[in-house]
Amino acid sequence: MELPGLIVAPLTPFTAALEVDVPALQREIDYIVQDCRATMVVAAGVETQEYTYLGLDQRKALIRDTIACVEGRVPVMAGISHPSFKTAIALAHFAEDLGAAAVQVLAPLRPFAGAPTQADLMAYYEAIARETRLPITLYLNPGPGAEVSVADTIALARLPAVTLIKESSRDLARVSRLIVEVDRAGHARYFTTMQMLLATLQLGGSGATMPPPGSEIARHIIDAFVAKDHERAAALQLEFALFPSKWMHRGLAPVMKAAMNLIGVPVGDPYPPYAPLTSEETHALAALLRTGALGHRFSASAAA
Amino acid sequence: MELPGLIVAPLTPFTAALEVDVPALQREIDYIVQDCRATMVVAAGVETQEYTYLGLDQRKALIRDTIACVEGRVPVMAGISHPSFKTAIALAHFAEDLGAAAVQVLAPLRPFAGAPTQADLMAYYEAIARETRLPITLYLNPGPGAEVSVADTIALARLPAVTLIKESSRDLARVSRLIVEVDRAGHARYFTTMQMLLATLQLGGSGATMPPPGSEIARHIIDAFVAKDHERAAALQLEFALFPSKWMHRGLAPVMKAAMNLIGVPVGDPYPPYAPLTSEETHALAALLRTGALGHRFSASAAA
Amino acid sequence: MELPGLIVAPLTPFTAALEVDVPALQREIDYIVQDCRATMVVAAGVETQEYTYLGLDQRKALIRDTIACVEGRVPVMAGISHPSFKTAIALAHFAEDLGAAAVQVLAPLRPFAGAPTQADLMAYYEAIARETRLPITLYLNPGPGAEVSVADTIALARLPAVTLIKESSRDLARVSRLIVEVDRAGHARYFTTMQMLLATLQLGGSGATMPPPGSEIARHIIDAFVAKDHERAAALQLEFALFPSKWMHRGLAPVMKAAMNLIGVPVGDPYPPYAPLTSEETHALAALLRTGALGHRFSASAAA
Amino acid sequence: MELPGLIVAPLTPFTAALEVDVPALQREIDYIVQDCRATMVVAAGVETQEYTYLGLDQRKALIRDTIACVEGRVPVMAGISHPSFKTAIALAHFAEDLGAAAVQVLAPLRPFAGAPTQADLMAYYEAIARETRLPITLYLNPGPGAEVSVADTIALARLPAVTLIKESSRDLARVSRLIVEVDRAGHARYFTTMQMLLATLQLGGSGATMPPPGSEIARHIIDAFVAKDHERAAALQLEFALFPSKWMHRGLAPVMKAAMNLIGVPVGDPYPPYAPLTSEETHALAALLRTGALGHRFSASAAA
Repeated sequence: MELPGLIVAPLTPFTAALEVDVPALQREIDYIVQDCRATMVVAAGVETQEYTYLGLDQRKALIRDTIACVEGRVPVMAGISHPSFKTAIALAHFAEDLGAAAVQVLAPLRPFAGAPTQADLMAYYEAIARETRLPITLYLNPGPGAEVSVADTIALARLPAVTLIKESSRDLARVSRLIVEVDRAGHARYFTTMQMLLATLQLGGSGATMPPPGSEIARHIIDAFVAKDHERAAALQLEFALFPSKWMHRGLAPVMKAAMNLIGVPVGDPYPPYAPLTSEETHALAALLRTGALGHRFSASAAA
Repeated sequence: MELPGLIVAPLTPFTAALEVDVPALQREIDYIVQDCRATMVVAAGVETQEYTYLGLDQRKALIRDTIACVEGRVPVMAGISHPSFKTAIALAHFAEDLGAAAVQVLAPLRPFAGAPTQADLMAYYEAIARETRLPITLYLNPGPGAEVSVADTIALARLPAVTLIKESSRDLARVSRLIVEVDRAGHARYFTTMQMLLATLQLGGSGATMPPPGSEIARHIIDAFVAKDHERAAALQLEFALFPSKWMHRGLAPVMKAAMNLIGVPVGDPYPPYAPLTSEETHALAALLRTGALGHRFSASAAA
Repeated sequence: MELPGLIVAPLTPFTAALEVDVPALQREIDYIVQDCRATMVVAAGVETQEYTYLGLDQRKALIRDTIACVEGRVPVMAGISHPSFKTAIALAHFAEDLGAAAVQVLAPLRPFAGAPTQADLMAYYEAIARETRLPITLYLNPGPGAEVSVADTIALARLPAVTLIKESSRDLARVSRLIVEVDRAGHARYFTTMQMLLATLQLGGSGATMPPPGSEIARHIIDAFVAKDHERAAALQLEFALFPSKWMHRGLAPVMKAAMNLIGVPVGDPYPPYAPLTSEETHALAALLRTGALGHRFSASAAA
Repeated sequence: MELPGLIVAPLTPFTAALEVDVPALQREIDYIVQDCRATMVVAAGVETQEYTYLGLDQRKALIRDTIACVEGRVPVMAGISHPSFKTAIALAHFAEDLGAAAVQVLAPLRPFAGAPTQADLMAYYEAIARETRLPITLYLNPGPGAEVSVADTIALARLPAVTLIKESSRDLARVSRLIVEVDRAGHARYFTTMQMLLATLQLGGSGATMPPPGSEIARHIIDAFVAKDHERAAALQLEFALFPSKWMHRGLAPVMKAAMNLIGVPVGDPYPPYAPLTSEETHALAALLRTGALGHRFSASAAA
C-alpha cells in the first residue's frame, strides 16, 4: 500500500505593494518541505492560495517561483484552473516545461445560470487531457467551482488522465462513498481536507490537501496512523475541531495566515479587501494553538 | 469514561391496513435489544420511524407498544416532537407515566417563512423543560426541523434539561466542533449517525442513533473501538460507505426496511406514497449486504 | 374571462389559554368578507394560519368554526394537508360534510431525507382524489412542504381533480412560466401571493391567496386592475414592497397579526414560542400602514 | 421622470478559432442600437457575454471593439469585474480613456469559504471608487458573484459613486423592496432582468439589462409602458414566460445565441465546453419565437 499523501498548498505572501513576496514564500516552502514533510506541493491551485487575484503573468510567476523554491525536493502540482480550457491548456504546457509533476483543475462553474451537465464537464476535462501528458487532479470545490454529483464525480474519475481527486466537501457520507467508488475502485486517488484526514485514511482514502500550518498537525496525524498509534492520531485530529473552524467567519486564508504569523513563519495579511483577524481573535487563536502540536513553535517571549 | 451509546430507532412495521404491526415490532425490538445490544431504544422519535403519518392517539400507542416490547431490558426515549409545545408536554407526561427514561424533541421549523431565532428555540425548549422531569434530547434534523447554527446549538446544549444531542448532519467540520464544544465541554452527550460513528467515537463523542439493521454493524464498530481494534473498527465503518447511500434516492426508511426484510426480520414496506425498493434494487442491496457484517444472516436459500 | 380571485386565509386568534378565540375569528371573517370582498376563504390551509400547532380535533373545530363564521357568504376551502393521505382523506370527508367547496393540500415533504419523486407526489394526490369529490388545490410551499420542480408541477396540474394551484414562490421567472403552462393552458387556475398579485393578473394568472389585512390592499389592486386603472393598481401594489417584507425576520404570522391589531380588527399574538413585534417595530409598521390603503382605519387617537 | 432604461449586453460571437468575431459583433451591435434602441450598451459586463473565458488583453480588446462598434450612438458601460480591486481599477482606467460612460462591477465571491461581510464589500467598492471618476454599477449575481443581503445592498447603494444597480434575482419580494429602498429613495437607479421588466417599471424601477434578442421584445414593452398601453405591455411581457425559461437547462448564453441565429443576426455557438441547443430544441424555440414580437424577422424560407 502506498503511504498516505500530504499535499500542501503554500499561502501566498504579499508585499505592501501586493506583489508576491518571494523570500517569504521560500521560508514558507522550507517549512512545508522540511517540517511538515509534504509529499507534494501545490502551486496556485486552491482559492485559499489567493491566486484568483493574480493576472495570468503573475500566476505563471507564482508557479515558477513555487517550483524554484521547492528545488526538486518533492513533486509540484500546478493549478491551471480557468473558465477557458484553452488557458488551462496553456498553463499546463507552461507547468510541464518547468517540470511540474501534475496539474490541478477546478470543476468549473457554468458562467451563466445553471449547473454544468456531465457532458459539459467531461468535454472540458477531455479537452485538457488531450493536450498535456501530465496527470490531472480533479478539484471539487462548490462555490468558486461547480457542485458535482456523486455520479458525475465517478464518471470524471474514470477518465484515464484523472489520477487524483481533491474534494473540499466535509460531508462524510459523500466522502465515504467516493473513497470506495473512486479510490478503492482504482479510478483515482482521493484526497480530502484537514477536518476529514483521519476519517479519510481509515476508510482507505489517500490523504488530504491543505495550507500550512495545518499541514504540520496533519503530518503528525499521518505518522501516528502509519505507526498504528490510533489514540494519538485521534487526539491530533481533534485539534482540527476548533482550528480553523472558530474563526472561519474571516475565511480560511486569513485564519491560516494568522496562524503562520503566530508560529514564526510570517506570510503577511490577506489580499484586500478581506480583513486579517483582529487582535482579539489573534490572541484567542494563539491561546488555542499553544496547547497543541504547534505549541512548541511559540517561544516564551512570543506570546501573542 | 462512559461506554459509547448505541441508540436504536425501530422502523415502524405497518399492516396492509396501515396500522402498526405490533408482533412485527416485537420481533424487531428483540433483534435490536439482543442482537444489536442497543443501549437505548427510541420510540417514535425520528422521521425514519414514519411517526409523522400517525395521529396523536396512534403515536401514543406506538410509544406504549415500544415500551412494552422492550420490557425494561434497556431504557426507552420517547419522541415528543410537535410544533406546539403544549402537545409536546402532553406527550412528555404520557411517556413519563409509562416509565420512559428520556424525551427527544426536534428543533422545530418555524411554520411560517424564515428561521427561528435563538430566543424562539430557547423559549420552546424551556417551556417543555419546565413541565417534565425527564432529560431532554435536542434533536437536530434540518428539513423536517430547523437549521440550527453552531452558536444556537451550544446555547441550547447549555440548558440544564438538555442532556443529549442527536445530530443528523454529516458535516464532519460541524460535528467535530460540536463534539468539543458540547460533549467534551460537559454540556450534553453528542450522538450522530451511522456514517459518522467511528469518527464520532474517536473525537470523543458519545455514540450514534440509527435504525436497524445499521445498528448491528454499529454494534460491531463500537465493540471493536472499545477493544482498541482500530483496523477492524475502520473496516466495519467502511460498510456504511455504500449502505444505505447507494439507495438514498428512495429515502432512508425504504432502504432500511428492505435491508431488514432481507436479513429475516421483516418489517414490511414504507408507508404510502413512498415506494419500496424495486426488485432490481433489492437484489443489489442483498449482494452488498452479504459481503459484510450482516452476511451471516443470509441463509443459502434466502438469496434475494 | 373569470374575474380575478382573492382567496383569504384568516389568521387564527388564540385566547390566553391558547384556544381558538371564536368571537375574534368571527369579527376577522366579517372584515374579510365585507371589507376585503374575498372570493373564497381558506380554513386551516396555510402555515401562517398557525394550524400546525393544533391537534386533529382542534383543526376540525377550526374548519367548522370558519365555515360557520363565513355563513355561506362566500365558498370555503378547507386545508387538509397531512403527511398521511389517510388523514387528509378523513379531513376531506369532514369538510365535504360541512359544505366546503374545495380542499387544499400541501405538496408534502418526504419525512426522511431527500425529495419526493414525481411518482410519489402523483400517488399521494391520486389517493386523495379517489376519495373526495371536492376539487383539490395543489399547495406549493417549500420548507413546510416539498420543493416541486416546474415539470412536476405541470404533471400534478394535469390531474383532473387538481383545479387550482397555490404557489408560495416569489420567483417571477418560475411563476410566469407556470401561469402560461398551467393556467393559460387550461389545467388549473394559478394563484400566487401578495407580492406577486399585479404581475400575476397581468400575465393571465387567476389571483392570489393571503392573510388579512393584505387582502384589503389586494382588493383595491384587483378592483383597479379590472377597471383598467393600471397606474392605481401599480401604486397599490407598491405597498407590498415594504409590507410585510421589512418585518419578515419575525415571520409572516406575527407581522400580519400586528397589522390587524393596528387597524382595529384584533387577532392577538402569535402562538408561542414565536414573539410578536416589539413596540418599536409596531410603531414603525403603524407609521408605514397609515400612509397607504389601510390608513383610513387608523383613527386620529389610535396612533400606535 | 426619466425614461426607462434598456441596457443591452451583446453576446460575444466567437470564430472557429475561439477569437472574438468582430464583424459579427458589429452587426449585432447595429441590431441592438438601431432595432432595439438600447439606451446603453454593456461591454464585457455580464457572464452571459462569456467574458470570463478571455484573458485580460482579450477582455480589453472586447471593450475597445464594443466601444468602436457602438460609434458613440449610445453610452457604453464597461465591465471591470475582477477578484482583485487593482485589476478592476486598471480596467476602469482603460475604459475611461476609451470614453466609456460607466463601469460595472460584480459583487465578488469571497474566494475562500464563506460570504463577504458588509465591510469587505464596502472596502472593495470604495477602493475602486477612489481611483475612477466614472459612475459605478453594482452588479448582483449570486453564483459567479456573492449573495448580497438587502441590508448590504442598501449600504452599497448609498455610496456616492454607485449610481446604478444591476440585479439578477427574479425574487419579486426582494426586487420590490429594493426598488423602493434604493431607486425611489434616490440612492441608485435599479435595473433588473427580462422576466422582471414590466413589474420593475410599474413599481418605479429604472429598467432592465439583458442580451439580445430579448432586448427587442423589451423595447416594445418599454414603448407600450411609456404610451400607457398596459394591455399591450402585459401581452409582450408574457413572451418572457417561456423564452428563455424552457431552454435554460442549456444556460442563458446558448439560448440567446440560438435565438439570434434564428432571427438572422448570427452570433455563432457558445464557447466550449457548453453545447448549443440541439436541432430539436432549436426547432421548438423557432416555433415559439415566430408567434411573438420577433416573428417578423423570420422569412418564409428561414424556417428553422
